Amino acid sequence: MADQQARTDGDKRSTEIPAIRWEEPPEGPVLVLLDQTRLPTEEVELVCTDASALVEAIRSLAVRGAPLLGIAGAYGVALAAARGFDVAEAARALEGARPTAVNLSVGVRRAQAAYQDALASGGDPTEAATAALVAARALHRQDAEASALMAAHGLALLDELLPGGGHRILTHCNSGSLVSGGEGTAFAVALAAHRQGRLRRLWVDETRPLLQGARLTAYEAARTGMAYTLLTDNAAGSLLAAGEVDAVLIGADRIAADGSVANKVGSYPLAVLARYHHVPFIVVAPVTTVDPDTSDGASIEVEQRPGFEVTEVAVPHVPVTGAGGGVPVAPLGTQAYNPAFDVTPPELVTAIVTEEGIVSPVTAQALAELCARSRQVTTG
Amino acid sequence: MADQQARTDGDKRSTEIPAIRWEEPPEGPVLVLLDQTRLPTEEVELVCTDASALVEAIRSLAVRGAPLLGIAGAYGVALAAARGFDVAEAARALEGARPTAVNLSVGVRRAQAAYQDALASGGDPTEAATAALVAARALHRQDAEASALMAAHGLALLDELLPGGGHRILTHCNSGSLVSGGEGTAFAVALAAHRQGRLRRLWVDETRPLLQGARLTAYEAARTGMAYTLLTDNAAGSLLAAGEVDAVLIGADRIAADGSVANKVGSYPLAVLARYHHVPFIVVAPVTTVDPDTSDGASIEVEQRPGFEVTEVAVPHVPVTGAGGGVPVAPLGTQAYNPAFDVTPPELVTAIVTEEGIVSPVTAQALAELCARSRQVTTG
Repeated sequence: MADQQARTDGDKRSTEIPAIRWEEPPEGPVLVLLDQTRLPTEEVELVCTDASALVEAIRSLAVRGAPLLGIAGAYGVALAAARGFDVAEAARALEGARPTAVNLSVGVRRAQAAYQDALASGGDPTEAATAALVAARALHRQDAEASALMAAHGLALLDELLPGGGHRILTHCNSGSLVSGGEGTAFAVALAAHRQGRLRRLWVDETRPLLQGARLTAYEAARTGMAYTLLTDNAAGSLLAAGEVDAVLIGADRIAADGSVANKVGSYPLAVLARYHHVPFIVVAPVTTVDPDTSDGASIEVEQRPGFEVTEVAVPHVPVTGAGGGVPVAPLGTQAYNPAFDVTPPELVTAIVTEEGIVSPVTAQALAELCARSRQVTTG
Repeated sequence: MADQQARTDGDKRSTEIPAIRWEEPPEGPVLVLLDQTRLPTEEVELVCTDASALVEAIRSLAVRGAPLLGIAGAYGVALAAARGFDVAEAARALEGARPTAVNLSVGVRRAQAAYQDALASGGDPTEAATAALVAARALHRQDAEASALMAAHGLALLDELLPGGGHRILTHCNSGSLVSGGEGTAFAVALAAHRQGRLRRLWVDETRPLLQGARLTAYEAARTGMAYTLLTDNAAGSLLAAGEVDAVLIGADRIAADGSVANKVGSYPLAVLARYHHVPFIVVAPVTTVDPDTSDGASIEVEQRPGFEVTEVAVPHVPVTGAGGGVPVAPLGTQAYNPAFDVTPPELVTAIVTEEGIVSPVTAQALAELCARSRQVTTG
């Protein structure tokens, strides 16, 4: 069950936005999420007391973004365990909540493995639940650390590719602290550049249909004091043609073994445009985003979302009129094609920046080596 | 002054949508426009009794689309003349209402020239006003004839490029009977294919920020019974990558002498994507869209529209909250880059289809020859 509570005014101006936090009030542990569907007009938290509420929050995009989904999935398993629910069932439901981001199942499985290992070693369910929570917290902390490393590597790469400084970065969708245990992926690189006075402008694609750029990236950019400008996804072409973009930086929801990158729909057209204009197209994502079990781009399952996200406009505080709860903008009965993601082949990706280092050019072998190095570090 | 009147129910299901019509009620002549900002949810007409009401209707996009703007401009001059206003002043205001579509000033100047010629030949103001109206009506009729010819030429080109038939056409913005004295430009080609049973699907880009695709093209497609599917502009990339598009067809607001095409923002990215995927990118526009006085793409003035079109969502029947009269979707104070158009260079355009024939490959010389031929026909 999820309850909603408005945050107090005191919290409202904080620069740090806790997108997710574990709390243990007397009534039992809960997972508290910043409801991202209500941003930027309202900062409302969702309190999940069980995994099914979290599944619903994931499906409705109240919590979203590949790395954060991993953290949420791990906490979800810990929540099911702490509240005495069937952990395997909760894990299955969480893993299936959204198909494209591999981090979700990585997070779920990590917490579930910790839970099962504890039971197998003779621990009681309470100890096993604690083990799951420890695993979730570790993933949360590791993701924050990974953010910082990605930001550093990404900024170094920008400085190498664009020695002049004064970077003008175009980004798509949302990849800041709202998707991460830390400061995010692509946005964290722009933020690092901003902090060092080397960001001239962040161009923010609005990112239809759900406007994560307008609602979330602009919100994060405004809070951190960046120079940013919003644009329709359609306007990125003329911006690139005018030479106003030095690099395109995006996150990723899944990276196949061959280096194909699944990310928010609209990323692939940017990659084609970037190539056409000889502008670097850089993907920033933690190593957990790389899925060695997905061999290539064609094997990535792309989530198809309801057509009403396109045929209606969701407007806060407006009476529901359409089937999807929004205001219809297309004729009744209009069918829509609404893939949530698209896939960019490796040959269009200049570099993949991870916490473990940079892969460039993007090849299956270089990615496999990176993953092997990462596993050594994790298990070492 | 513009008054609004709802159309009667009897008109509502008519397939022919009169986007513009001249009427002469006892109170004096008026120009009646279908208010395109209210579509598809409402069919409301705006009644203009003077040129300044028409200027406002043009600016607010109640009337829009390059060919229709030319017709509207001509009728606007006729209206000023018939009502005894200063015709030169009205013509200046109309020409300046929007900068990018060359057809607007072509239409204004044609009616103004007819008015002045009549005066110069010794006619009185009433006779000159009649001459302006005759010129406007001729332009209206010629545009309808041009539509039919463009549709025929365009369909022949499609059949030549894609001999298999069963065309899957992607279009952007709106280019049907709402922009024309006839059935439009690019949309008219798709409609001709549909009527001959050779259209498999019309893919309709929603066309942010003003959603002309979702609101207007989907409305026209639904009325004519086409198989159509709406998509976000972002989703066109994966559709092309999946081989689901046989040709991209768009209209144009201005074509420079070198063949550079200014059209709704988002057209240029489609041209780059089409090229990358070896899919024909076809521009359909009447010869009046070609502007020999604009030498190249860089010389085309691209209209910059207010940022609130991006930072707010316009929703009918919702109380005004943002500066632009819509519901804010981005943080307050967010700056937006909002060009209405972009420019596609000739090397990315497979063909320009006009009523006078097809230009392919697109070169300055071929365009100049076409225009010369057209002038011979017009003056012959």
